[in-house]
Amino acid sequence: MKAGKLKNKKIDLVLLLNLDSLNYNPNMLYFTDYKGIGAFLIPKDKKPFLMAPKMEVERAKKTFKKVYPLDKKKLFDSLKGILKRKKIKFKVLGIDYTSINVNIFKSLKKEFKKVRIKDISKELSNQRKTKAVDEINKLRKACSIADNILKNCFKNFKKFKTEHDVAFFLETETKKATCDLSFPPIVASGKNASMPHYEPQNIKLKKGFCVIDFGIKYKGYCSDITRTIYIGKPNEKEKEIYNFLLKIQNNLIKNIKINDKCEKIYNNCVKQLKNYSKYFTHGLGHGVGIEIHELPNLTPNSKDKIENNMVFTIEPGIYIPNRFGIRIEDTVLFDKKAIVLTKTKKELISI
Amino acid sequence: MKAGKLKNKKIDLVLLLNLDSLNYNPNMLYFTDYKGIGAFLIPKDKKPFLMAPKMEVERAKKTFKKVYPLDKKKLFDSLKGILKRKKIKFKVLGIDYTSINVNIFKSLKKEFKKVRIKDISKELSNQRKTKAVDEINKLRKACSIADNILKNCFKNFKKFKTEHDVAFFLETETKKATCDLSFPPIVASGKNASMPHYEPQNIKLKKGFCVIDFGIKYKGYCSDITRTIYIGKPNEKEKEIYNFLLKIQNNLIKNIKINDKCEKIYNNCVKQLKNYSKYFTHGLGHGVGIEIHELPNLTPNSKDKIENNMVFTIEPGIYIPNRFGIRIEDTVLFDKKAIVLTKTKKELISI
Repeated sequence: MKAGKLKNKKIDLVLLLNLDSLNYNPNMLYFTDYKGIGAFLIPKDKKPFLMAPKMEVERAKKTFKKVYPLDKKKLFDSLKGILKRKKIKFKVLGIDYTSINVNIFKSLKKEFKKVRIKDISKELSNQRKTKAVDEINKLRKACSIADNILKNCFKNFKKFKTEHDVAFFLETETKKATCDLSFPPIVASGKNASMPHYEPQNIKLKKGFCVIDFGIKYKGYCSDITRTIYIGKPNEKEKEIYNFLLKIQNNLIKNIKINDKCEKIYNNCVKQLKNYSKYFTHGLGHGVGIEIHELPNLTPNSKDKIENNMVFTIEPGIYIPNRFGIRIEDTVLFDKKAIVLTKTKKELISI
Repeated sequence: MKAGKLKNKKIDLVLLLNLDSLNYNPNMLYFTDYKGIGAFLIPKDKKPFLMAPKMEVERAKKTFKKVYPLDKKKLFDSLKGILKRKKIKFKVLGIDYTSINVNIFKSLKKEFKKVRIKDISKELSNQRKTKAVDEINKLRKACSIADNILKNCFKNFKKFKTEHDVAFFLETETKKATCDLSFPPIVASGKNASMPHYEPQNIKLKKGFCVIDFGIKYKGYCSDITRTIYIGKPNEKEKEIYNFLLKIQNNLIKNIKINDKCEKIYNNCVKQLKNYSKYFTHGLGHGVGIEIHELPNLTPNSKDKIENNMVFTIEPGIYIPNRFGIRIEDTVLFDKKAIVLTKTKKELISI
């Protein structure tokens, strides 16, 4: 467990919930390594503990020591019962507003009428913004596994006929490595590449730039990398625009300094893109950890600043609708300087 | 598009939101077939329309005709702008409370101060509870693809060494069929089978019952099937308990009638399980559609009743902690009677 306590001393009790068996609450995972339905409670002056439905207790105990039964159908009775048994009194209850829906929130307010409910989502994301050594190790490993898979993908590329074939290769190699995907791979060829979040289809790979955006999860921690290759033979103009973007990406990484405003790094990218900046339609980067999108945000109006032990992406792109798209993305660790964790080479490959 | 209107005439405007690029809002998908970030608006007396970020507009237009740009960073300015332009006035705003988080809800209330906000989550789930013909066709196909994959899985079973090998086979065959998984397959062998939501591990398949719970998505629609096979040779007692459960499962399916209370069907199962009922630790079934868990709920205290064109699972199980687990699950369509859509045979296979 990372750190059983929130730093905020004004919160008497933190309650994290996951009521969906098919999704996990990243903050609960962060503290407990448990992915199932449950409640995680952090009392100010007592040890934190986990509650899980009867059918999940056995599984929950594999990752967290203290597990008590939770009746999902009588959620609040269960919670109140254990709080009473453990003699936990609280006036201020900390809740992660981003991970509970409005119905649960309304019930919480009704059930704990005399309690002040405070949002702790910002504190939780801030706590996860810089990584501990064991987290960095997992992130490094996630990046190096993705690098290997991508290298093999390029080696085998001649065999692939469709976008779907490429995505299938990336997915099965991920599973073979007993990892999960961070997100469904994007394989966008020809003019499809101008859609940054394009879903690969069962259609023939088209000539031209092909954007491949791919990431895996190793022990719960994500990697994120994009390479753009060229199917066929690029002309001089195409090589030029690719190298223009690559130079910007390398430049941005090289120049990141501690305390840099993330907004400034984004603006810097826009400035360097010159006339192409209107074809750069997404953020420059995002933190990577348990979630594929975490703090810091490298976007306009971001309030984040670069700190040591942050792990984030740098991913400028140029997307000209109905013509082509190029994106080059690395996951980097900041430790006095930006260290690139995804090491797949970036010179334009033509296949 | 299914039905661009909600039946509730008291709602002036429905607003559905998806602000997460890695998840989709099932209700938005239901109406628009679009999975990306966006807002879907259904005005009472005007045509519904979709809004998507600039980077997603091209993709959104592939599935829905009317798409306007949305600035995610200035969400409410974007929304207000288009509502003004389209001269849409509203006093009652319908929101799906289960798909927005508390922070967004609080901002909505602040931005639309004079408007009454009403939860429409129940109406939306109710609208999706019975399926249209095209939905049933997709669900049928999803079940038959899963059947084929499972058949091949059993044929190849001797080759598998670990739980992970089995899950890997199911996943890759799903991808080969250009489908997605409904959920990560469960492959639980030996005493692991007593954990209903067990995650398959890279460990040797153990002798004894092995629960395989698997489902795929075909064109956005899910299937769900569980078979329990036996690795090794079951003894008489084991055959007996398996057949006891199978008989109950078949019986329950055969006896479902229109207007049956779902709670009653669940209670019926508990009654038939006799002494084993304390080892049946989850619901008897759930609706299946765009989501793997929809209405109706076949659980204690469920208020649902069986209607024509409902599609749901029947999945009794017996889980004895640290010893073994058995579950038998089919996806059925109710159309005057329960028609089993998952046709993989259910006699105990020993491998």
